[in-house]
Amino acid sequence: MLLKTDRMIDQIAALSRGETSARSLAEAALVQAQMLRDLNAFVALDPEKVLAAANASDARRAAGTTLGPLDGIPIAVKDNFLTRDYPTTACSDALPLEHAGVDATLVARLREGGAVIFGKTNMHEWAYGATNTTSRFGPTRNPRNPDHITGGSSGGSAAAVAGGVVTAALGSDTGGSIRIPASACGIYGFKPTYGRASRHGVLPLSWSLDAPGPLAASLDDIAVLLSCLLGEDASDAATRGSRPFQPVEALSRRARLVNLTGPGLERSDEVDAAVTAALQSAKGCTVETREVPGMRRFFGAWETILHCEATAYHQPRLAAAAGFSSVTRAHLEAGQLLSAQELLRAQQVRAEFCSLLASGLGNWDALVLPTLPVPAPAMDSDWQEFGGRRVTTQDSMTWFCWLGNLAGLPAVTLPSGLSSAGLPIGIMLLGRPGQDERLLQIAKLIDTSVNQAR
Amino acid sequence: MLLKTDRMIDQIAALSRGETSARSLAEAALVQAQMLRDLNAFVALDPEKVLAAANASDARRAAGTTLGPLDGIPIAVKDNFLTRDYPTTACSDALPLEHAGVDATLVARLREGGAVIFGKTNMHEWAYGATNTTSRFGPTRNPRNPDHITGGSSGGSAAAVAGGVVTAALGSDTGGSIRIPASACGIYGFKPTYGRASRHGVLPLSWSLDAPGPLAASLDDIAVLLSCLLGEDASDAATRGSRPFQPVEALSRRARLVNLTGPGLERSDEVDAAVTAALQSAKGCTVETREVPGMRRFFGAWETILHCEATAYHQPRLAAAAGFSSVTRAHLEAGQLLSAQELLRAQQVRAEFCSLLASGLGNWDALVLPTLPVPAPAMDSDWQEFGGRRVTTQDSMTWFCWLGNLAGLPAVTLPSGLSSAGLPIGIMLLGRPGQDERLLQIAKLIDTSVNQAR
Repeated sequence: MLLKTDRMIDQIAALSRGETSARSLAEAALVQAQMLRDLNAFVALDPEKVLAAANASDARRAAGTTLGPLDGIPIAVKDNFLTRDYPTTACSDALPLEHAGVDATLVARLREGGAVIFGKTNMHEWAYGATNTTSRFGPTRNPRNPDHITGGSSGGSAAAVAGGVVTAALGSDTGGSIRIPASACGIYGFKPTYGRASRHGVLPLSWSLDAPGPLAASLDDIAVLLSCLLGEDASDAATRGSRPFQPVEALSRRARLVNLTGPGLERSDEVDAAVTAALQSAKGCTVETREVPGMRRFFGAWETILHCEATAYHQPRLAAAAGFSSVTRAHLEAGQLLSAQELLRAQQVRAEFCSLLASGLGNWDALVLPTLPVPAPAMDSDWQEFGGRRVTTQDSMTWFCWLGNLAGLPAVTLPSGLSSAGLPIGIMLLGRPGQDERLLQIAKLIDTSVNQAR
Repeated sequence: MLLKTDRMIDQIAALSRGETSARSLAEAALVQAQMLRDLNAFVALDPEKVLAAANASDARRAAGTTLGPLDGIPIAVKDNFLTRDYPTTACSDALPLEHAGVDATLVARLREGGAVIFGKTNMHEWAYGATNTTSRFGPTRNPRNPDHITGGSSGGSAAAVAGGVVTAALGSDTGGSIRIPASACGIYGFKPTYGRASRHGVLPLSWSLDAPGPLAASLDDIAVLLSCLLGEDASDAATRGSRPFQPVEALSRRARLVNLTGPGLERSDEVDAAVTAALQSAKGCTVETREVPGMRRFFGAWETILHCEATAYHQPRLAAAAGFSSVTRAHLEAGQLLSAQELLRAQQVRAEFCSLLASGLGNWDALVLPTLPVPAPAMDSDWQEFGGRRVTTQDSMTWFCWLGNLAGLPAVTLPSGLSSAGLPIGIMLLGRPGQDERLLQIAKLIDTSVNQAR
C-alpha cells in the first residue's frame, strides 16, 4: 500500500510557488481515496463537488484573491460535523440521510479560508465508542495494517490523513476521539482547550467534554489549522472569551514536563520504552516523573458525566425502537438509571481532579503520557493485556485520553516510533487550560528530537 | 416596643470622636437583646465574651492601634457560620452542640477588623426554608410586629438589626435568605455575586447557589461591611479571582433599570404600588418594564438544583433516624429520588436563564423586583394570596429572590415604605455578576429618593 508523506505546509508552499494547483491536489486526493477505498475511511465523497471547489480556488489564485494559506487545500470532515453539501449521519441508523443545508462553524471557517471540503469520514456511531468498528457504514481499517483498527471515534479522518488522501481532517474528541485514531494511525492530532473551538453544528456526545479539532500530517500543519479554527463563536456559549490561536515562535525557558505513572496508568513495555526514549532525547525540557493517586476514580467521574450527558441529548430518540446499535442503546439506557446524587458526586470528583492538576503536581508546562497503552489492536480482538491489566479493547483506547477531557486541557498526540509489529506508537502531551500555543511549541521540541529524520 | 435607629456609620463616627466606647456599645446591645428576648433572635449570646472583646477594642483605641472602621462594633452572626467561641448548630437537632473551635473566613475577617462578635442568631433549620418558624430553638418573631414572621433563613440576624440590638449581622442566601428577612423586617440586606465572598466555614445548603453576606441598618453600613468581607480566600475555590470591594463614589451615567413583570412575577397591589412609587421618585435612572417568559420553569430549575445539592451534602446524616425536622427530612429524601437526567435538565435551564439575563433583556445595569410579593406573613398563616395566585407562605418568601441565586447575581434589598398594616415593604435590585459596587451605588440612588426623610 502506497503511503504518501506530504505535509499540508508542503502543499501550501507548492501552491504559492505555482508548482501545483488546487485541481491537481484534488485529483490526486480523489485517486488516492479510490486506491484506499477498502479502508472505508469515507462515507460520503462527491468528486464533482471537490473539483468545483478546487477550480474556484485556482480561479481565485489566478485573480490574486486567495483567501489565505488553506486556499485550495483538500480537508476531510468527520461525519458528525454539519455540512451544507453532504448529509450528516454520525454514522448511525438513528439519523436519516438528510442534508442539513448548513455548515458547522468550523467547516464554515475552513471554507472561508478557501479549503476544499473533501467529503465526510467514517466514525464510531455517534462518537460513542473508540474503536470505529461500530458504524452504519462498517468498520474503518488502519492504513498501516488493514487487519488492525484505526481507533476512534474520528477513525475515518485519521485513516484519510495517514493514508495520504488528505493532509488534514476535522475530528471531535470527548474522551480521546481525535488523539486515539491519530496515534493508532501514526499521525498528529490536537484537541484544543475545552471552549476554544466552536462546537456549533457538531452533533454532540457529551457537551461538557466535547472538543472539536484537527488531525494532520505534521505539527506545522496543526498550527495553520488552529489559526483558522480557534476563537469565539456567538453560537457556542462555551467559546465566550476564546482567543484566536497565536503561534509562539520559541519558548522563553526550558519546558517543565511531568511524566505521569502509577496505578491506573499502566502501559505495555514497548509503549513505555518509546515514551521513555522520546523524553530522554528531548532537548529544552526538564522531566519529572509523578504518580497520580486515585486515577480509576477520576475515570469513573468521566464515564458517569459522559453517560448522563449523552443520554440527555439522545432522550427524544430513545423512544423509537430502532436506529441505535445494541451497544449504543445499552449505554444510553444505562444513562437513564443514574441518579442525580451519582451525577453530582461525579461533578464534584471532576472539580477535585481539576484542582489536583492545577496545583497538586507542581508548576508543570505539560503532562506526558502515552496516547494509547498498546499499538492499534487487531480487528477481531476484544481484549487487551498490558502492564498486568486485562481490559476491553474499548477501555484500552480511552485509557489515558479521558484525562484531557475531564479537565478541559489542550492535548496533542505525535508519532513516536513503531512497535515490533510495525504499528505506530504515539506520545501525548497535555497543557494547561488556554495554553494551546505553548503546548504546541513543547510538542515541537519532542517532535524535532523523535522525528527529525522526517 | 422601642426600635432604635442607629446606623453602624454613626457608631463608627461616635467611636472615632470619643463620644462612646466599644464597652458602651456592647452594654447597650446586651440590654436591648435582653429587652427583645421574646423575639428569639439569638440562640447563643455570652455577655462575658462580648464585654471582653469590647474591652480589648477600647484598649486598642486608647493605644492608638485600632484595626479599622469596624473596631468595637457589635456584629451578630447567623448560626450556620462556624465561630471559635460559640457552638454552631444550623438550628437543627441533627448537629450536636459542640464548639468547632474555628472561625468561618468571614467571621475571622470581622475579628481581624476589630468587630465584637455578638452571639449567634436564630435561623431556619439548615437554612432549608424561608420562614424561620422551623428551628430547634423555636420561631423568630418580627420586631415590627411579633405576631408576624421575620422570614428566613437569616431571620434572627434581621430581627437583631431591625430590633436595634446591633447595626449589622452576617447571613447567608441560597434563594433569598439574606434579602427575605431584611425586607420583612424593614432593613437592608446584600447578597454578593456568587463567589465574591468566601463560604469557607459556612455550613452549606446548596453549594452552587450559596452566598454569604451582610444585613445592616443602612447602605453605607453595607459598604463598610463589604469592604471587609469580599475577596479571594484560598479555602473556597469559588472565590478564585474575587476582587476586594472597591466602593464607587458616583455613577458616570444614568443607571438603566429594568422593572420585571409578567406571569410568575405577580405581587400584591400595595407591594406593586410601593415599587412603582420608588421607581417614579428615583433620580439618575431610566426605567424600562419587561416581561420575562417562562419564569416558573426557571424556578423549577432552582428548586431541583437546591434539592439535589442539599441531599448530597446531608447524605451521611440521613441514615440516622432522628435529628431533622420532618419537613426538612422530606425535602432531603425527595432529593434522593431525582434522576441524573432531571438534574442535567435543570443545569441546562439554569444556563439558559443566565444567557437570557446576560443578553436577552437589553443593556441593563439593574433588574428591579419587589423583594417579597407580600409584607411579612402572620405567624400562623400557611398560605398567601396575591395577584391572582395562592401559594404556600414558604413559596411566597422565595417568590422573586431565587433569580439572584440561579444566575449568581449580586442583589440588594432596601426598605420602601410600609403596608396598610404597618409592615415593611422592600424593593430588590439585582446587578450584573461582579458588579456589586455599581449595584450598591444604584441602590443608593433609590434609597435617597425613597428614604430621604431618614
